[in-house]
Amino acid sequence: MTLTPLPLTAVRLNDDFWSPLMAVNRTATLPIQRHQCQITGRLDAFTWTPGCGRPEPHIYWDSDVAKWIEAAGYSLATCPDPALEKQVDDVIDTMASAQAPDGYLNSHYLVVETDKRWSNLRDCHELYCAGHLIEGAVAYFQGTGKRKLLDVMCRYADYIIATFGTGPGQKRGYCGHEEIELALVKLARATGQAKYLDQARYFIEERGRQPYYFHLEAAARGEDPKNYHFHTYDYLQANVPIRELTEVAGHAVRAMYYFAGATDLAAATGDKTLLAACRRLWKNLTGRRMYITGGIGPTRTNEGFTFDYDLPNESAYAETCAAIALVFWAHRMLHLDPDSQYADVMERALYNGILSGVSRDGQRFFYVNPLALYPPMLNPKDTFFGGRRQDWFGCACCPPNVARLIASLPGYVYSSNPREAWVHLYAAGEAALEVADTKLTLTQATAYPWDGEVSLTVSPETPATFTLALRIPGWCRKASLRVNGKPIGLASITKKGYARIKRLWSPGDKVSLSLAMPVERIATHPKVRHNAGRVALQRGPVVYCLEHVENGSDLNSVILPRSSSFKLVHGPSALGSVPMLTAKALRPDGAAWRDDLYHPIDPKSAGKKPFTLKAIPYYLWANRAPGEMLVWILEG
Amino acid sequence: MTLTPLPLTAVRLNDDFWSPLMAVNRTATLPIQRHQCQITGRLDAFTWTPGCGRPEPHIYWDSDVAKWIEAAGYSLATCPDPALEKQVDDVIDTMASAQAPDGYLNSHYLVVETDKRWSNLRDCHELYCAGHLIEGAVAYFQGTGKRKLLDVMCRYADYIIATFGTGPGQKRGYCGHEEIELALVKLARATGQAKYLDQARYFIEERGRQPYYFHLEAAARGEDPKNYHFHTYDYLQANVPIRELTEVAGHAVRAMYYFAGATDLAAATGDKTLLAACRRLWKNLTGRRMYITGGIGPTRTNEGFTFDYDLPNESAYAETCAAIALVFWAHRMLHLDPDSQYADVMERALYNGILSGVSRDGQRFFYVNPLALYPPMLNPKDTFFGGRRQDWFGCACCPPNVARLIASLPGYVYSSNPREAWVHLYAAGEAALEVADTKLTLTQATAYPWDGEVSLTVSPETPATFTLALRIPGWCRKASLRVNGKPIGLASITKKGYARIKRLWSPGDKVSLSLAMPVERIATHPKVRHNAGRVALQRGPVVYCLEHVENGSDLNSVILPRSSSFKLVHGPSALGSVPMLTAKALRPDGAAWRDDLYHPIDPKSAGKKPFTLKAIPYYLWANRAPGEMLVWILEG
Repeated sequence: MTLTPLPLTAVRLNDDFWSPLMAVNRTATLPIQRHQCQITGRLDAFTWTPGCGRPEPHIYWDSDVAKWIEAAGYSLATCPDPALEKQVDDVIDTMASAQAPDGYLNSHYLVVETDKRWSNLRDCHELYCAGHLIEGAVAYFQGTGKRKLLDVMCRYADYIIATFGTGPGQKRGYCGHEEIELALVKLARATGQAKYLDQARYFIEERGRQPYYFHLEAAARGEDPKNYHFHTYDYLQANVPIRELTEVAGHAVRAMYYFAGATDLAAATGDKTLLAACRRLWKNLTGRRMYITGGIGPTRTNEGFTFDYDLPNESAYAETCAAIALVFWAHRMLHLDPDSQYADVMERALYNGILSGVSRDGQRFFYVNPLALYPPMLNPKDTFFGGRRQDWFGCACCPPNVARLIASLPGYVYSSNPREAWVHLYAAGEAALEVADTKLTLTQATAYPWDGEVSLTVSPETPATFTLALRIPGWCRKASLRVNGKPIGLASITKKGYARIKRLWSPGDKVSLSLAMPVERIATHPKVRHNAGRVALQRGPVVYCLEHVENGSDLNSVILPRSSSFKLVHGPSALGSVPMLTAKALRPDGAAWRDDLYHPIDPKSAGKKPFTLKAIPYYLWANRAPGEMLVWILEG
Repeated sequence: MTLTPLPLTAVRLNDDFWSPLMAVNRTATLPIQRHQCQITGRLDAFTWTPGCGRPEPHIYWDSDVAKWIEAAGYSLATCPDPALEKQVDDVIDTMASAQAPDGYLNSHYLVVETDKRWSNLRDCHELYCAGHLIEGAVAYFQGTGKRKLLDVMCRYADYIIATFGTGPGQKRGYCGHEEIELALVKLARATGQAKYLDQARYFIEERGRQPYYFHLEAAARGEDPKNYHFHTYDYLQANVPIRELTEVAGHAVRAMYYFAGATDLAAATGDKTLLAACRRLWKNLTGRRMYITGGIGPTRTNEGFTFDYDLPNESAYAETCAAIALVFWAHRMLHLDPDSQYADVMERALYNGILSGVSRDGQRFFYVNPLALYPPMLNPKDTFFGGRRQDWFGCACCPPNVARLIASLPGYVYSSNPREAWVHLYAAGEAALEVADTKLTLTQATAYPWDGEVSLTVSPETPATFTLALRIPGWCRKASLRVNGKPIGLASITKKGYARIKRLWSPGDKVSLSLAMPVERIATHPKVRHNAGRVALQRGPVVYCLEHVENGSDLNSVILPRSSSFKLVHGPSALGSVPMLTAKALRPDGAAWRDDLYHPIDPKSAGKKPFTLKAIPYYLWANRAPGEMLVWILEG
């Protein structure tokens, strides 16, 4: 039985982790991103004219504004803000006015290359931008009830349906950057119109078929398809149809959006072969190609995947958008096939490789999220690997992606189906849902992720029998459960990582879940050559790292003895006083080496100096002075 | 007091290490390289005409032929070969015929870009090619007594002297790739003409001065100097004059040839400030930027240097030519400032990072010499990092560089000055020299580098008092010495790494040097982040590595326990039965991980499987089936 996430409006968080982040997102990040869209010309792109003095609208720009609209839609769903709503309405008015009579809507091709519409699907992101505008329209409609942009995007989608397909006179194309697929499924759900789902299916099924549309299209432009910059359509997952893909390859964000859309399609159609493909790709990704932070796509070369077990740390690309897109896919897999492995990955990315993408103050952003930083190797002109979050980027996909994710975070916590209420994430707050034809309030109290004690109050309007499914996180090796104070054995009721408590629930029933949360030393599969002999520190879902501020330099040579135990101490207030881990550690005495580079060693002699290692949550790195950082610590 | 190397003709090796390599070099490598020069058009470059059907002579080509001539000259000095001599004479005839009336001699600019002579010193290697031709001419003259090419090159050098300098009408230029400097010093020594030394001095002193000649020259070509591909003249050591250089930077081969030339100049002129600069650069290089193999220049980006302690293993460029050029510089520093630190580095490069550049059969070559190879990361089209030696390269600098070095190897073993005979390297054979006005034969018997026992017979024609200086290698931690069976304390007679035995020597006196040669675990300075927690195995001067053939895959996760001891066993006959090292080691049980990528570990549990690690000499890697290789082994 599949699941449906609770709508944003049904969930209210009042926890100490996500709620403050959502507030920062609302009060700092969203205004900043509107400002950036304004000063860079994105907000007024549709009214650009030659000679107006503003830069030409770029092919990506609509997607940035669209993600800001989407984030605003989510934010308005949980926290009304008339000023923000007015800002969005103004942008929507501009867009509506700019829409072509046939429904087409893309700033670059409406005002710059006015005769080039649909001439380069491979590189030019038209359908990608359309997809983001659709997501924005759906979110804004659901958050405010206003359907102006939704109607605009339905007209655009209708035009896309008319343009792309296998019928006579239609283009058999699909977008070089997947996104439209999952957006059309959202549009189908929001409008109840199956035609949008059908079009998503067309785009997914057509992709990778021969003769390659991108070949034909390039030839039509007078270009040799062999001159394609990325050489192979692996880069955009269009080398073979999806059911023939055996491993995640190419550009990471493209791949994740694609697989998210395919999972939506499998859920909507019940297509078992498509689900099998998604499961196979999931297994390859999470078993061989994912950083411990949930970051994915190790290399800058293709902003994406390389080969199994290739997870370099210093050069890890691990684009913020890719970890976010992984959450989108994980969330969809979870709802189609309820299994904690999906929620575990979702949680891993949320608490680590995504949150690292934004500064504590919500004002600066990382595009890439390496797992080690060694300052001498940095190119100061490199805004990606420079170890400092940036105000904005020329290609600004990541900042508004973080914003829309954080704004929609309450939507990831709970799900339901007619007979079951599911809790995926632990965060204090309240949810309203209906299970077994009974209205139900679920109240969570917990200090998660810093503490593993979770208390749930289950309050159906009237007593009712249903299942409450609680995720037992993959990181937890010792959990216990009580219902109204009475211990319940977990082994017999836990299936696919969820404890399923089926009983007659009465108003005020108390469920206590106790998740042992010691500091764990995590090792990596021996084929990951970068982490051999090294461990990462993780407590609960939070991965820790060493930063120069507490630990000085040359972190790669720091040794964590196997015998060292850990203490929790309050971290610096600059990082919100979250728990820091300390342990006795060793480091070589650099001074003893003098000018030697190589030295024979006596295996018995240590020559190491003791010190107290202090680890902070990875997601908080680079919020103080820039400097060295390390996740994988040498064990000795 | 400085030293002079013994001429090649005064040294005869009959050892089991170098002599067979020299034979392979003579019988396989030299013919192959002539063949490659022929089939690629290099040998006939000077007779190329438009439409002749052969490829246009490239700006590098003369240097490849020149290095082959130089190698032939050394080989003929120690082993006459009329057929080879005839081949070289033919090439020299072609060159002599092609020389322009003014002395100019460069195939590319004489037959292809005939109006562009000296228009782009920065990029086009004209003086570099001239330098190699001069080195070839000197070697061929010294090896055969034939001076035709020497005379040709004197005429060319005279023209260069007239062209470049600070006088009126002269160009204040210098070559983008250093080489001419050291070549002119060789020419000065071979001819006794100081003008060539003066010209070398001009090139060295002028380099890096402002206004930059390369700026002016680019402007004269109508180019913006800012568009220089490498952005900064660091790349070619021309950002500042040599005395202002504080670290080795830029292209490694360029830097080494430059510093070798500067050391020659310091030796010839007694210039203390120049020597101080060379010493400072040497310290930076060997203390912070040199692989344990003697390889230098870690990155492909500039074929050169990055920053202190940056020594990545898989991506190590460590060009064969750069290690060879390091030997050239080390050899010069050693003779100007007799100190074993220079001979130690020379020996390190010779037995490791240079010999790895050529296959056992002398027929295939590595351009780059990484210290780890992980096959999945290879690009099969990459002839540099593919893990297989190649027949030849488009830019073929390395193969003939190895050939000339091996052919001249006997010249690195001994030196002398009027009162001292010096032994730098240990290799069985005989040397004839004159010390204290007495003719002297030195006979070495040793199985070095596989055994540390060295026996020297000192046979002056008549008894004479002089110093015999024997290098105590830096790798040796326990040495002992006997003269005619009587122990001599080393501490009191060893200075700057050489045991100096001053006595009245009589014909047949026996010196026995015993160098303890256990397997050593070598650690790296803690700032080298790539080798943290890892050790390399070295025995005597030979660095060892693990290869897939004996050790299987996933070598990065192999653990060498601190308690393991080593045994020596005969290696496979495919590698010449040289000693292999074995030790008890551990490796993670990959199968136990199943599909997990991350796993919490109990610090007490091992989960490792024992196996016997087998290490082979690094220089022999990639002589069997291509596969994984590793120098730096995790210690646990």
